[in-house]
Amino acid sequence: MEEFELIRKIIPTYYRQPSVVKGVGDDAFVFRSSEDIVFTTDTMVEEVHFSRKTMDTHAVGYRALAANVSDLAAMGSRPAFYSVSLVLTPDWTDEEIIALYDGMEQLAGKHSMDLVGGDTVSGSQTVVAITAHGYLPPDKGRYRSDAEDGDVIFVTGTLGDSRGGLEELMNPGESVSGHLIARHRYPEPKAEFAAGLTSLSRLCLNDISDGIASEANEIATASGVRLHLQKEKVPVSEELRNRYPDQAGEWALSGGEDFELLGTVAPGEKEALLEKARELDIRLTFIGTVSASDLPEVLLHSPQGTETLQPTGYTHLKERRKRL
Amino acid sequence: MEEFELIRKIIPTYYRQPSVVKGVGDDAFVFRSSEDIVFTTDTMVEEVHFSRKTMDTHAVGYRALAANVSDLAAMGSRPAFYSVSLVLTPDWTDEEIIALYDGMEQLAGKHSMDLVGGDTVSGSQTVVAITAHGYLPPDKGRYRSDAEDGDVIFVTGTLGDSRGGLEELMNPGESVSGHLIARHRYPEPKAEFAAGLTSLSRLCLNDISDGIASEANEIATASGVRLHLQKEKVPVSEELRNRYPDQAGEWALSGGEDFELLGTVAPGEKEALLEKARELDIRLTFIGTVSASDLPEVLLHSPQGTETLQPTGYTHLKERRKRL
Repeated sequence: MEEFELIRKIIPTYYRQPSVVKGVGDDAFVFRSSEDIVFTTDTMVEEVHFSRKTMDTHAVGYRALAANVSDLAAMGSRPAFYSVSLVLTPDWTDEEIIALYDGMEQLAGKHSMDLVGGDTVSGSQTVVAITAHGYLPPDKGRYRSDAEDGDVIFVTGTLGDSRGGLEELMNPGESVSGHLIARHRYPEPKAEFAAGLTSLSRLCLNDISDGIASEANEIATASGVRLHLQKEKVPVSEELRNRYPDQAGEWALSGGEDFELLGTVAPGEKEALLEKARELDIRLTFIGTVSASDLPEVLLHSPQGTETLQPTGYTHLKERRKRL
Repeated sequence: MEEFELIRKIIPTYYRQPSVVKGVGDDAFVFRSSEDIVFTTDTMVEEVHFSRKTMDTHAVGYRALAANVSDLAAMGSRPAFYSVSLVLTPDWTDEEIIALYDGMEQLAGKHSMDLVGGDTVSGSQTVVAITAHGYLPPDKGRYRSDAEDGDVIFVTGTLGDSRGGLEELMNPGESVSGHLIARHRYPEPKAEFAAGLTSLSRLCLNDISDGIASEANEIATASGVRLHLQKEKVPVSEELRNRYPDQAGEWALSGGEDFELLGTVAPGEKEALLEKARELDIRLTFIGTVSASDLPEVLLHSPQGTETLQPTGYTHLKERRKRL
C-alpha cells in the first residue's frame, strides 16, 4: 500500500470533541478548554510488554490505549484525545498497522476520543508510545493522596482476570477460557464511572495496572494512612477461581493490568458510589477501611490472620519485620 | 546508582509554569489554561535519528526537545511543558541518562518549560519520544495554510549549518568548525520570536526541520499558492560557505534540522516583523513572494533561470514536467 493511502486510512475524517481548534496536519495540534486538562503517557515495547505471538495487533492497539484511558479514569477525568508514536520493525504488514489503529479506534469510539497526532518511524524493535488527554472540572482531580482516616475502600470489577487470560494464551490447555482471554486483550477502563462521580466532595482513586498490592501501597504512602483490606472480599471471578483455584487469590492481589479502579471515600458517600455503579452496570465491592497511621502500610486481613501486603505481592508480617 | 536516587535527580523540585495543578507523581499530570493549548510529539530512534558515536547524550537530549520546541514555535505558541518516554538499551550508564535530561533541561530553562511526565522502559534499541505543550492566545494559531497572494516570504537565521555540522562530525577533517557543530548539536528554536508576533493579524509559519525545500512546499500545498524564492537571498552563514563552497547552496535548501522558521506576511507587516527580530537579535531575511496559483508549487529564481523546488530538494523544471 502507498504510504499516503495508509495515512488516509488512519487519520480522522472528523472530530468527536468540539474543543479541537486545529486537528492533524500542521506542526502541532491545537485545542481549547474551560476545564482542567489531564495528560498521561504510556510506552510499550514488543517482547517486553506485549507479543504478537499471543496477541493480534488489533488487541495490542486496544490495550495500549486502554492503559492510558485507565490513567485518565484514575484522575477522574473524561477522555478526549490520544496520539500515537510508533517505532515499527520492517516485518509489520500494512494490515497489521491498520489493525493496530483500528484496535485503538474501537476503544476511542466508546470514550468519544479523537486521534490528534503522532509519528511513525523505523527501528529494530517495535515500540508503541501513546499519550492521552482528558478533561476535568476544576478542583475535581482525584488523587492517591486523598485517602483519610475512616474511609471505606472499594474496587470495581473483578481482579486477576487479565493475569488468567495471559496464562491461557501462554500455556494453552485442552480448553481455553474466552472470558479470561477477552479480559486480558480487551480490558474496560472505568473512565465513565470515575468521571461521573463529580458529586462526591472527596474521592481517592488509583487505577489497577500493577496489581492491587502495588496500588494500595501507593495510596497508603501518598495519603500517609494505613489501608486494611479484607482478603475474602477481594472480588475474583468465578471463571478465574474455577480454572486456577490455586493461583486465583494471588493473581487477584498482584496480577496487574486489570485496569479496574481502587479507591476510598467517606462512609457517607458509599450510597452515591453504589448508585453510579448500578447505573453503569459496574460491579463495585467494598473491601476494607482506612485508618490513621504514622507508618503508611497495607494490612491484609483474613480468617488465618493478618499480613502486611507488600507493593509487589504479599509476605508474612514476620518476614517484613526482618526486612526493616 | 539506585533507581530512586536517579529519579530524584531527574524529577523537578519546582514548577516554572503557574498553571500546573498536579505535577509529577500521580497517575497523570493536570494543568489549567485560559488560552488555547498546542501539543506536539517527536520520536527519535538511535542510529536512525541520532548516534551516540557523534553526539554525547547531553546534546541528544537538547536536540530532541529542540525539535518539539520548534514545532511549538511554528504554531506561534509559548512553550510550557514537556514529557519524555525513553526506551533504553542496557549499555546506558547513569551518567548518560542524567546528561540526557540535563541537555533537555538546558533548553527547557531558556523557555521556562517544566518536565511533567513520561516513563522509562528497557529495550534493544534506544528511543527518545518527547511530547510538548505550549500556550496560544485564542485564534492566534499560525498555520501553514495562511499564506496569501502578495505576501512576502521570510526566514530566520541561516540555513544548512546543521547539515554542515553533521558533516564535520561524520567526516572530520584536519580542522573542525566549532560553530557548525554547535549549530547541529544545540540549535536554537525561535519560539520567543514566534510567540512575540501576536500583534500581526495574519502570519503563516512553518519550522525548518526537513529543509526549506520541503517546508516551502508544505506551505504552497496547504495555502494553495505559488511561492517564489530568490535563491541568492537564502541566508547561508560565512562559515558554511567557506568550509563547504560546493555544498552550501544545496544544504541551505534541503539540509534540514536547522529549526529556524519560514513564514509569510502581508507586505505591510514587514516592519513589525523586523522590529521584533531586532529586539531579540535574530537575523531575519526576506527571500521571496507569494502569488496566486491554481497549481501549488515553489519556484526557485536565480540569475541562471527558474527551477521548481521539489519537496526533497530541487530538480529542473523540465524534469518535473515529465513527472506529471
